[in-house]
Formats: sequence, structure tokens, C-alpha cells
Amino acid sequence: MLQRIVRVSCPDRTGLVSIITTAFADRGLNINQLDQFTNDGSFFVRAVIEAPSGLFASPATEDDEFRRLGERLTASLDDAEVEIRPHPAQQRIVVLASRTDHCLNEMIRRAQDGQLGGSIVKVVANHDVHRQVCEFHGIPFVVVPHEGLSKQEHEAAVLEAIGEDVDLIVLARYMRILSDEFLQKAPTPIINIHHSFLPSFIGANPYQRAHDRGVKMIGATAHYVTADLDEGPIIEQDVTRVHHGHSKDDLVQAGADVERTVLHRAVQAHCEGRIFLNGDRTVVFGS
Amino acid sequence: MLQRIVRVSCPDRTGLVSIITTAFADRGLNINQLDQFTNDGSFFVRAVIEAPSGLFASPATEDDEFRRLGERLTASLDDAEVEIRPHPAQQRIVVLASRTDHCLNEMIRRAQDGQLGGSIVKVVANHDVHRQVCEFHGIPFVVVPHEGLSKQEHEAAVLEAIGEDVDLIVLARYMRILSDEFLQKAPTPIINIHHSFLPSFIGANPYQRAHDRGVKMIGATAHYVTADLDEGPIIEQDVTRVHHGHSKDDLVQAGADVERTVLHRAVQAHCEGRIFLNGDRTVVFGS
Amino acid sequence: MLQRIVRVSCPDRTGLVSIITTAFADRGLNINQLDQFTNDGSFFVRAVIEAPSGLFASPATEDDEFRRLGERLTASLDDAEVEIRPHPAQQRIVVLASRTDHCLNEMIRRAQDGQLGGSIVKVVANHDVHRQVCEFHGIPFVVVPHEGLSKQEHEAAVLEAIGEDVDLIVLARYMRILSDEFLQKAPTPIINIHHSFLPSFIGANPYQRAHDRGVKMIGATAHYVTADLDEGPIIEQDVTRVHHGHSKDDLVQAGADVERTVLHRAVQAHCEGRIFLNGDRTVVFGS
Amino acid sequence: MLQRIVRVSCPDRTGLVSIITTAFADRGLNINQLDQFTNDGSFFVRAVIEAPSGLFASPATEDDEFRRLGERLTASLDDAEVEIRPHPAQQRIVVLASRTDHCLNEMIRRAQDGQLGGSIVKVVANHDVHRQVCEFHGIPFVVVPHEGLSKQEHEAAVLEAIGEDVDLIVLARYMRILSDEFLQKAPTPIINIHHSFLPSFIGANPYQRAHDRGVKMIGATAHYVTADLDEGPIIEQDVTRVHHGHSKDDLVQAGADVERTVLHRAVQAHCEGRIFLNGDRTVVFGS
Repeated sequence: MLQRIVRVSCPDRTGLVSIITTAFADRGLNINQLDQFTNDGSFFVRAVIEAPSGLFASPATEDDEFRRLGERLTASLDDAEVEIRPHPAQQRIVVLASRTDHCLNEMIRRAQDGQLGGSIVKVVANHDVHRQVCEFHGIPFVVVPHEGLSKQEHEAAVLEAIGEDVDLIVLARYMRILSDEFLQKAPTPIINIHHSFLPSFIGANPYQRAHDRGVKMIGATAHYVTADLDEGPIIEQDVTRVHHGHSKDDLVQAGADVERTVLHRAVQAHCEGRIFLNGDRTVVFGS
Repeated sequence: MLQRIVRVSCPDRTGLVSIITTAFADRGLNINQLDQFTNDGSFFVRAVIEAPSGLFASPATEDDEFRRLGERLTASLDDAEVEIRPHPAQQRIVVLASRTDHCLNEMIRRAQDGQLGGSIVKVVANHDVHRQVCEFHGIPFVVVPHEGLSKQEHEAAVLEAIGEDVDLIVLARYMRILSDEFLQKAPTPIINIHHSFLPSFIGANPYQRAHDRGVKMIGATAHYVTADLDEGPIIEQDVTRVHHGHSKDDLVQAGADVERTVLHRAVQAHCEGRIFLNGDRTVVFGS
Repeated sequence: MLQRIVRVSCPDRTGLVSIITTAFADRGLNINQLDQFTNDGSFFVRAVIEAPSGLFASPATEDDEFRRLGERLTASLDDAEVEIRPHPAQQRIVVLASRTDHCLNEMIRRAQDGQLGGSIVKVVANHDVHRQVCEFHGIPFVVVPHEGLSKQEHEAAVLEAIGEDVDLIVLARYMRILSDEFLQKAPTPIINIHHSFLPSFIGANPYQRAHDRGVKMIGATAHYVTADLDEGPIIEQDVTRVHHGHSKDDLVQAGADVERTVLHRAVQAHCEGRIFLNGDRTVVFGS
Repeated sequence: MLQRIVRVSCPDRTGLVSIITTAFADRGLNINQLDQFTNDGSFFVRAVIEAPSGLFASPATEDDEFRRLGERLTASLDDAEVEIRPHPAQQRIVVLASRTDHCLNEMIRRAQDGQLGGSIVKVVANHDVHRQVCEFHGIPFVVVPHEGLSKQEHEAAVLEAIGEDVDLIVLARYMRILSDEFLQKAPTPIINIHHSFLPSFIGANPYQRAHDRGVKMIGATAHYVTADLDEGPIIEQDVTRVHHGHSKDDLVQAGADVERTVLHRAVQAHCEGRIFLNGDRTVVFGS
């Protein structure tokens, strides 16, 4: 049985779910999961649908059918964005990393266990420190050192290394701030993990500042990268409890566990097509 | 704008969501929320729908329209259970209590804050200890002492006190085991809060047994009451962390906070029509 | 068996625990609990100690003995603050409230269940909305309306209402910002509950701003009140998960549950003598 | 500055903390951390102590001094078990594994990040599936297939593979039940991770049984292994929320994350000397 993820967003009006699900029913497709959300005149739906076995003569027929389904949905809905992709998701992910490896390692592990909704097709780093682990897992690893390059030159080289055959860029504790120009040229959305519970501690050294402020919980935030530093739409957050006995280094260590979990959940949600942008906010359907 | 909760469960087949949501669309009704679940041949859907203001001439017209909607859904779906009720929910709840009051107090407070999906129309207890608080909140309070009565006689008196004008019975740490006969005669489903993380510590004295076993978390479980003690379908569970320094009495106190929270969530979910029975398990749609 | 809480803070040096616990041992006192923390040259210890039954001839002898113990500790430690108080704690608490009642209700309930480390000796509010519940629980209730009064006049009247026979002032969602003058004249420390996960959303309307920012968790923070708004030493924080479907009002409701829990924990920790100020941060020993 | 962990357990009596900390003070040793617990006549203390730099002429002097400190403590305390070990802890761990690798991988990662309180000196498995990852990390890997061997023969071979130069044996989802004979011959304590929230779902297939029972949270339990299956003293537990939409395989996947976290915390607590056995229960001091 073949499954597809169908994503539709459009201006809200009466009857949208009926139109969409009737399009499924007319083709004999079953709905395995359906989530919808309406907010301030916007409508979002995500469905996992399934062709009963034997419905389509061949994989080629099937691809045709789903293409036509997408066309019909687009035609019958005003101003709609319609997307149909395979389920389970098979997104192509490029990870950008700096020196620390806990987020990168988690991404690799989750991808291998089939829990990421995609595969890591390349790791690009500005330090030559992850080569061994990438090679062990058969992932192409490219170093783009920033020494001796202007920011513009370095970013151009990074974009070159990322290439075009990619669905998502993930910053796995990548420590260089990306320019507006980079964001405009980037071929895909970019997800970043910020090591604080935003909007607390925007910017540099969040753990030191959390320690100085004496907070009793620290957190991490995965968000889409926009031109405003740490101000992009939040995808996922989590926290862990800390106490007076924790040094700044203890916070870093405790926070690393939260970071890797939060980043994994955000990337998986994105790859599985469960996230919609709703202005500066996100709609994230449950798994 | 008038809202209704629509609940449908029936054997699964292709096109159910289309049929249901088209019935809404044909009447000009908007969908505010839609949750569906398919499992092993069973299909469950819950929708919150809304008549745009001005759609119906009067409340009476509206009631008629929704009755006809229910009839149409029942007619077009095989073996379906269809239920339509107002949103926000206004269930009539009778609470059974013994001596402890933390769950009862929470129920009263949540009902008053409009967070229960209903109102407490009566409290029935086997000890005369909650009269003052019930009177303060204007809730009829009935004592049915068990002294001097057979179990059968006591239960008959309790059923008499509960009456018929009720949608849900809640056992708020009611410490008497109900007979099969009581369950058969009870006019509504019954939700119980068990003071352990089931299936751990079924039966009496769960905190003492949790302490003896040296567990590191204790929990509470809200479930529908069936003839098998503590074996009914689980609705909601939660836990809290404990440590070696906690005495059995500390566990009782920490557990009380979990009990009141779990019971509140379960009762609210039931009253809002978010729960479906699926064999011995429950489907609980999110709030 | 009579118990006491002993609290000592002083500059750190070798041998402090030995001096303190030997003072206990020399008097035949048992240690039931001992927590100590050393940080940047400061030393903090809290012990719960117990006189074996029969050790003291009478309560008067006992009081004398503990007074002498305090004197000996003060004499043998340089620059030490030493405090000995009964265990269980019996602090006298005045609660300041505005219109909302969920934090006030929780404080009342916890005090009655013996879970606050003290009793509420008075509730002072700027609106006449909590009289009934206070009278039901036998707690003196004083309204100090702010209408027609200057800030200075109102605060003077509030201080007058609070009186002097008090150990702790708790702001249970009291919505008026206190002046520096008030803080200087206040007879006790003041604990506030802020309805955000500080330092996120300092100041007014945190739930609205949390909703606008699209955070995925909301929180609450209990802190000591200082002249800098929402910048006082943090005592306790917690969060709860929210999602795109939550309106601002839903956040308010979900947040209320976190607020009452966090405030309860902070007040209990303070009353039980488990908190030490360490610069702008707090040391909070576990319960 | 050199640090040591000091662990003492003995029958409780007045003055124990004084005796122990005075022994530290007399030698000029600082206390960095001190936890104590008294229960039913038993006393447990763990201290992290530190020799100020320059106190000891050489590492050899230092070792002598700490040996003498241990002797003095043993001499001055009746029936005491006294242990002094380096801090940070450097325990030698042998991991037993079967086919699944998430717990093994976590152990390896934590050990490399210095978060385990020890190093993995060997991995012993009954299937030849972890060789590559062990070799990548430079950890000796030994396969002891059980095919064609009696249980007794296989266990003898496993004990042989484990060897004697080891401080702790960890069962990282090792799927073979160990005989009493193995336990008696094992050179060290053994920590197991059970894939349920004990005492729920003792024995085989806990995730299937959790799914059948319809629980709303699943958990994992790390415990010391004793002759009674899954009945050994519990060290650590945690849970994660699941819902009706989770298949048994989803529970396995969600549970794996809890298992690796719980096992890590338990092994770290053991290696850092923070656990004491107290009958069938454990005392686990915080990190």
C-alpha cells in the first residue's frame, strides 16, 4: 500500500475539508491521518492518504494519479498551495556544523534509524573535525574553512558546497551568523537550534547569561532562520531543570541534551510535512 | 455564532470524512476543529462546527437543523453512532466522594472556572464531611452513610441520590468498590481516579506499596469503571518524581497533586466529547 | 521529639561543617537532614535537627538550649548569619491580591493542608472580591482600594494593613507595581509570581506577547521582589507545553495552573528556610 | 586540586556527621559537596572532598593520606563501610548487549563525553552486530554466541569474556535472563535497563502489553539485577507520553529514547558513588 502526504494551505472558507476529502474519496484513496487548522482567515490541512493495494496498475500510474490529484486540488481551491510527497518522507538534508558534535551525531543517528523523515546527504563544516564520523556513516563531508576569506566569500563557498539537490538545510550548532544575502540565495528553508528558551537570551553566550541570571530551567529552541537573529518562527522548544549547584559548564552539558532532542523533533516535523508557516508563527501538527 | 460538537463512530471504509464534511458544507457550516482516527477497521471523528451568524433564523431553527444533520449522518453511514451536543459542553456531573477532598475541591474549582465542560449538579458522599464547602459553592450535597446497610442497600441509596438527570458520574477518591449490579444500573459512564500508575499497584494501598517497592516516580490513572477492578479503559495518566527521602505520607501528598490534575483532564475530555471507546482502550483527541 | 531548622551562611573556609555538626553532637542533637553548598567563597548550610525525647526537661529548657546553640554557632563562626526556627515551619504570611483568585485559592488550600510552611494571617486586596472565600476560611480580609489615592498614599495604606506581625509577604498576582519606598519600608521579604518564564516577557501582558511570538511553551517564575521590575532573584520556574491551536486566553488558562504550582513551591521553600540569597541568585535546597 | 569521593554507610547514631567532617577538617580537607540520609536506623553519607593545592607534597603522599583517612573513619565508626575513590570517577565498565544498539550507543557517547563516571573497557554481545562501532571507538568487542551452548556453558563463556578487571557490568538491552549462578559469580554489581515502568509489565514484551492495556505513558526502569526477575532495587525511572495513535512499534521507538536516558543516569549515579543500597530500595543522591 502506497502512501502520500498531502499538504494544502489557502484562505479559509466554508467547505474546504469537504472539497479536499471528496477529491480523495472520488479516487478511492483512504485517509490514514488528517489534521486541519483554521486561524484568522487561513486554512491548513495535512493528510496522509493511501491507495488500497491493487488500486493502481503500476508505480507510474500511481505517480500520474497523484499528480492529477494535486492538479485537481489546485484547480478547485483559490490561492492554494498544494504539495504531495511520499510517506514516509524522504527529504534530502544538508547539515552545517561547527566544532560541537552532539547535534550532528543525533541527526546522523536519527536518520539511520529512520526517525528523521529524510537522509543526510552532506555535512558542511568550517572546521575539519567531523570527517571521521561522517566517513564511518558514509556521509560526504566538506570543510569550508573561513580563515582568510571574507564573510561573503565564505558564504559563497558554503552555498557551493551545499549544492542544489537538497530539501532542507539544518544548522546543527553552526556558530556563524548567516547574512541576508545567504538567506536569499539558500535553496531551501533553514532550521537552526538556538541554545536558549527564546525569547530569553537572544544572541551569544546564552548559557553564561542563564547562569548569571540564576534561572531554574534552561532550554533550547528550534526555529526557521530569517534575517532577524533568533527571531524566526519557532518550531519546537523544551527545557530541563537546573539548580544552584550547576556551573555554567554544567548548564552547557545539560542543555546539549535538550538541544539535540528539540532539533530532532523540529527537523522530523519539517521533513514529514507537519509544519506550516502562519505569519511569524508556526502550525505544527502532531506526529 | 453557535457551535456544536459532532461525534461519529462507525466501521471504517473509504470516503467517510468526505461524507461527513460534505454534510457540513452543504448546510453552510464551518469546521473549527476536526480530529479523526482509524484503527483496526474502526473509524472515529469529532468535529467542532459553527453556524455563521445569521445562517439560522432562530435558536429553534438551529436546533431543528442540527437534528436533521444528525439524521442525515446516521442515514448515510452504516452502523454509525452519531451524537451532536452544544459547544462549549454543558454536561451534568454527579461526584461521589469519601473523606479526602483534594479531588472534589479541584472538580468544584474547575467547574466554576468553566474548565470542566460541565457543572457539578450534586455531590454524594458516605461521610458528612463536605457539606460546608458544597453549600458555599451552592452544590446540593447528599450523605448516604454506609453504616448499618448492606452493600446492596447502600448502593441502591446512592443510585437513588444520584438520580437520573445526570450525564456523568465521577468518583473523586470514592473508596468503596462498586458492584457489577451498581454498574449495570448506573445511568451514565463512571470515571474513577486510581492513585497509582496503572497497571502498577492495582487495588488497595498503592502508595504504601510504591514506597515499599522503592519506585522513583508515582502516578495516577483516570479510567472508566468496569466490572474488573482498576482494569477499565485508561483515559489519562501522569506521574511525578519522588526520591528516597520521601516517606509514604510524602508520596500520598505528592500523589494528590497528580490525582487532581489527571482526574480534571479526564473529566474535561469526556465532557467535551473528546473520548471514544475502542475496545478496552480509549481514543482521546487533544484539546 | 522536637525539631528545629538551623540555617547558617558565612564566608567559606575549611572546617565549617565540622564546627557546626560538632556543636549539634556535643548537645546530643540528631541531624535529620543536612544540605550544604559552597560557592565563590560563600558557604550555606541548612540542617533539620532533633532533640531525642527526654533530652530536655521542659519546653522552656529546650528553648534556652537552642538559643545557646545559636549563640555558640555565631561565636565560633566569623561573619555568620545564624537562624534557628521551629520545624515544621510556622511562618506568618500576608497575601496581596488583585482580582484573579487562582493563586490566592492555592495558597489558602496549601496552608490548610499544612503544605505551605506557614499560615495566611491576612489577605490584603485592592478590590473587594475575595471577602467571601477568606471569611469561609477564617482569614482576615482587608480591602485597600487604590481609587482616589496617590500611589504613595495607597502603598502607605497597604503597609498599614499588612502590619508588623508578619514573616513573609506574597504577591498572588497582585497587579500593582511596588515603589522602591514600599520595598524599603516592607517589614519582610516579598515573593512575586510573574506570569512568564523570565527573563522572557518582562513586564506587562506576557501571555499576549508569548502568543504573538509563537512560543511552544509558556511558564511562570516566582522571585523575590527588588527595585528592578521582574529582575529579582529567581526562586522557582516551571513551564507547560502549548501549541498553535491555543488562543491567548488558552495561554492564560494553561499558565494559571503553572503559576499556582510555582508560587506554592517558592513560598513553601522560603517558609521552610530552604532558600539562601547568593548575590542576585538563590540557593534553594530540596524538600 | 585533587578530589576524592568519600562514601560511608553504617548504623545510625548521634554525632556521625561530626565525626566524619571533623576527620576531614583535621587534615585540612575542604568539603565540596555533602549529602547524607538517615532512614530506619541506617546512615549514609557521600562527600566530595578536596585537598587544597600544596597540601600534599606528592601524589604518593596524597594516596597515603587518603588511605589513612579511610582507616581512621573505619576505626572511629562501628560497623561502617567506608570507601574512598577518585573524583571525577573512573570506573571500568563492561557492557553486555544483544542486537539493539540505542543503549549501547548512548553509553559509548556518554563515556566519550566524560558523562558516565567511567569508561567502557569491553563490550560483550551474543550477536556479532556491534563490532564496527566498537572498533571505531577503540573498544574491545567480544562475541559469545549462545547457539549450540547450554545456558551454563554460555554464561561461563560470558563471565570469562567479562574478566576480572571491571567495576560494573551494564546490561544494555541484553535479552538473556541471567541465572542465579551467574549473579553469584559476577565480579561486580549489574545494572539492567527494563523497558517498562516497573512494576508494570514485568517480564517479556512490555511494549506489546502496554499497547494492549492502552496506557497513556510508557517508561523505562534501571535497576540492580538480583535473582528475582525485574525485582531488583530500582535506581532510576522515567516516562514519556503516548497516545491512541501510537502503534506498538511507535511505543518501541518512543521508549528507546527513555531507555537510553534512564540507563545513562543510573550508570552515572552508580559510577559517581551516589547510590547506596538500603534493603530492597536505593538511596540516590543528586548530581
